[in-house]
Amino acid sequence: MAKKNVYKNVNGTRDFFGSELYKRNYIISIIKEVFEKHRFLPLETPCFENNDVLFNKYGEEGDMLIYKILNSGDFTKNVDEQNWVDKEVKPLSHQITSKSMRYDLTIPMVRYFVQNQHSLPVPFKRYQIQNVWRADRPQKGRFREFLQCDADILGVNSLLQDIQLMQIYREVFSTLQLEICIKINHRQILMSFLDKIQVNDPNNKIKFLNALDKLDKIGLDKTLDLIKDIVSTKNLEQVKSILQEPKSIDFWETYLSKEHEGVLAMQKILNYFSCKKNEFFNIEFDFTLIRGLDYYTGSIYEIKAKNIALGSIGAGGRYDNLLSSFGAENISGIGISFGIDRIMLYMDEMKKYPQNIETQYRTKYLFLYFSEEESIAALPFIDKLREKNHKVDTYYKADKISKQIQFALKNNVENIVFYGKDEIEKGHIMVKKLDTQEQRYYKLNQL
Amino acid sequence: MAKKNVYKNVNGTRDFFGSELYKRNYIISIIKEVFEKHRFLPLETPCFENNDVLFNKYGEEGDMLIYKILNSGDFTKNVDEQNWVDKEVKPLSHQITSKSMRYDLTIPMVRYFVQNQHSLPVPFKRYQIQNVWRADRPQKGRFREFLQCDADILGVNSLLQDIQLMQIYREVFSTLQLEICIKINHRQILMSFLDKIQVNDPNNKIKFLNALDKLDKIGLDKTLDLIKDIVSTKNLEQVKSILQEPKSIDFWETYLSKEHEGVLAMQKILNYFSCKKNEFFNIEFDFTLIRGLDYYTGSIYEIKAKNIALGSIGAGGRYDNLLSSFGAENISGIGISFGIDRIMLYMDEMKKYPQNIETQYRTKYLFLYFSEEESIAALPFIDKLREKNHKVDTYYKADKISKQIQFALKNNVENIVFYGKDEIEKGHIMVKKLDTQEQRYYKLNQL
Repeated sequence: MAKKNVYKNVNGTRDFFGSELYKRNYIISIIKEVFEKHRFLPLETPCFENNDVLFNKYGEEGDMLIYKILNSGDFTKNVDEQNWVDKEVKPLSHQITSKSMRYDLTIPMVRYFVQNQHSLPVPFKRYQIQNVWRADRPQKGRFREFLQCDADILGVNSLLQDIQLMQIYREVFSTLQLEICIKINHRQILMSFLDKIQVNDPNNKIKFLNALDKLDKIGLDKTLDLIKDIVSTKNLEQVKSILQEPKSIDFWETYLSKEHEGVLAMQKILNYFSCKKNEFFNIEFDFTLIRGLDYYTGSIYEIKAKNIALGSIGAGGRYDNLLSSFGAENISGIGISFGIDRIMLYMDEMKKYPQNIETQYRTKYLFLYFSEEESIAALPFIDKLREKNHKVDTYYKADKISKQIQFALKNNVENIVFYGKDEIEKGHIMVKKLDTQEQRYYKLNQL
Repeated sequence: MAKKNVYKNVNGTRDFFGSELYKRNYIISIIKEVFEKHRFLPLETPCFENNDVLFNKYGEEGDMLIYKILNSGDFTKNVDEQNWVDKEVKPLSHQITSKSMRYDLTIPMVRYFVQNQHSLPVPFKRYQIQNVWRADRPQKGRFREFLQCDADILGVNSLLQDIQLMQIYREVFSTLQLEICIKINHRQILMSFLDKIQVNDPNNKIKFLNALDKLDKIGLDKTLDLIKDIVSTKNLEQVKSILQEPKSIDFWETYLSKEHEGVLAMQKILNYFSCKKNEFFNIEFDFTLIRGLDYYTGSIYEIKAKNIALGSIGAGGRYDNLLSSFGAENISGIGISFGIDRIMLYMDEMKKYPQNIETQYRTKYLFLYFSEEESIAALPFIDKLREKNHKVDTYYKADKISKQIQFALKNNVENIVFYGKDEIEKGHIMVKKLDTQEQRYYKLNQL
């Protein structure tokens, strides 16, 4: 049997064509505009980085999801003979590759910043909208190539940055007309709570926070079950009473202290936005928000879509230890990201794309085809219409006129244009509007 | 010795930040606009393709420049034992990888078209602006990652497409205000010439065309030297007389025939554009234009910058055999590309960027920093100004005011804004224009 047309895109990747790109670019253009109003500058980094940049930054599990690029030429040149004989996959994979594809946009940004620190402005505010790649098992909604969209600020640690970033979320989603709720929390509140209930061992802290992260999925009883071995019976009662219902930041002020760094930060943010809520924007303190355990050190945010079960459509927070892993002076960072894929799903679901998102790209004038000669004769008209910024196309071969009109209708063309023998003689084109059937005639100088 | 900050981007790749991206995006936005007026639709394909898509399409030399991605997990699983023992690099490189990074945009487009043919419009007109990767030795002006920018039409073979594509070049470069000359040639003219001088062996044909391709670099004598073994003495005299000076298309009409397919096509194109030359646009027939030997089958174009030695800044032509290598019905294709990197060099050299390309991104208002409290109090003013689409930023810490003003001057800020104790009391901001030192006061409702 002849195998024909078996060529396809790699599993877990996507092609984007036409209207899918118009939609995505509509969202991106709004986000970019807001980033730029807030004085973030665009950055684009290469798709691959040297291995020493990428590895040992994402944990062991992350490292396994990084795509490595086979060295060109004789890739066996530098392999360890014993590893080769034993087929030791892990060491060999580092001996036969020297660069890998980026896993996120944060590490490449940090590499860029550290490399160019002396010539860059401080604070360094950049946005970056590029694909990232993960050697993941593809599944519904999880891709091996997907777009990330980040804004970060390096080199300054103040509450104003938190407020600015949340204001960006507010502006973007209000413009897109999507209802969101920002959940915020502060790593220091979590840490002080762990101190209070005497969870002191670092591993137990992680275990506790991982359990807390699951609360809204598995419920209170199962969460308590997960931590009962690392919390004393007395403290477990306390945990239970706190987790039974959401606690406002006022509760934590009382429970911890008025001067607690995390409490103060949360209060200032909530206060500032208390009068800025609108039909699209809400902000809430959520003590059970964990995210990126070994990453965030201060504030943590997560954006939830309202009216639809979609997971988070954005996230961010402050990270203080990232640059030190590059041997750079410790510099505070803070950033947010937008989940473009999910925002697209949300826009589709809520039907929030502007009505003209597709029609603005429709063909305004389609010139019918009578013969090559007549089509060439029509070119001055076509050029003139394009000069006026109209989208113009010509039919491409001598099909029956009825077939050409069918093509125009199917492709949502606005006007068809006749320039056959009769029109050439009279020196005008005939323009027929397809929805009203109205006909008009134009000479070249009348366009 | 402590090794600090040794992290850098991969050799042969580039980071783009701020104004470099504004410039590049200015060029891209103009090209996109013209593509869309001509009814090309955007396509984005994944950065990697399955190996069977990419290999055996670019010749042996091309294949060696394709970046292969190491299989995840146990990549030794399917290796041939003998190959492994013998370290046979070439077969192993295909056994331990199954996908590779795209080398150009044409093959991924053809793969997309073949895969989705039944649901795509004919003719298929797409444009694509994405990075490609080549495992090349980096050198000045040659990169391992660079942007390609293509427009192609599949499924129709008529002269109108040639004219449309050249019209696109004309519109783009006239808008960018860059002087160009399009060189055009036709593969069939070259082939008929080879018949006439009795170069019949396929290898000799290639040898001859390769020599011809070098004519403007090595001169007539050396070119004749390269072909003297494959052309008879008598015919060599003929070749010499033809190559001595550029020959117009009229010469070829006489030399070959009035009805010659290539001659007719060239004449129609040259005729159409004869009255469309302007200060930025010229078009010339050039018999020595070769390009992509095993690729183009009909018309061939190359765009040359005027006033500057830059090589070609664009190229294209008709290819008829590309889809058959995917087992698809043979479909005629035609396309053009823009060399974005070189166009950027040309723009820089000619100083053709709009004057506001950088200033449109400058900070319009920089709020000075007195304290966190005062900066938070200023936020309503800041939000209001951003609502009015102004680019606004705040200074980030309590430096001396003189230092903050220095920062503003260095960063080309237009206005600095004071909102300290005094202004808060009076309920207005003080805006100071940095070039004129003019001061103005605004209450919130006056913005």
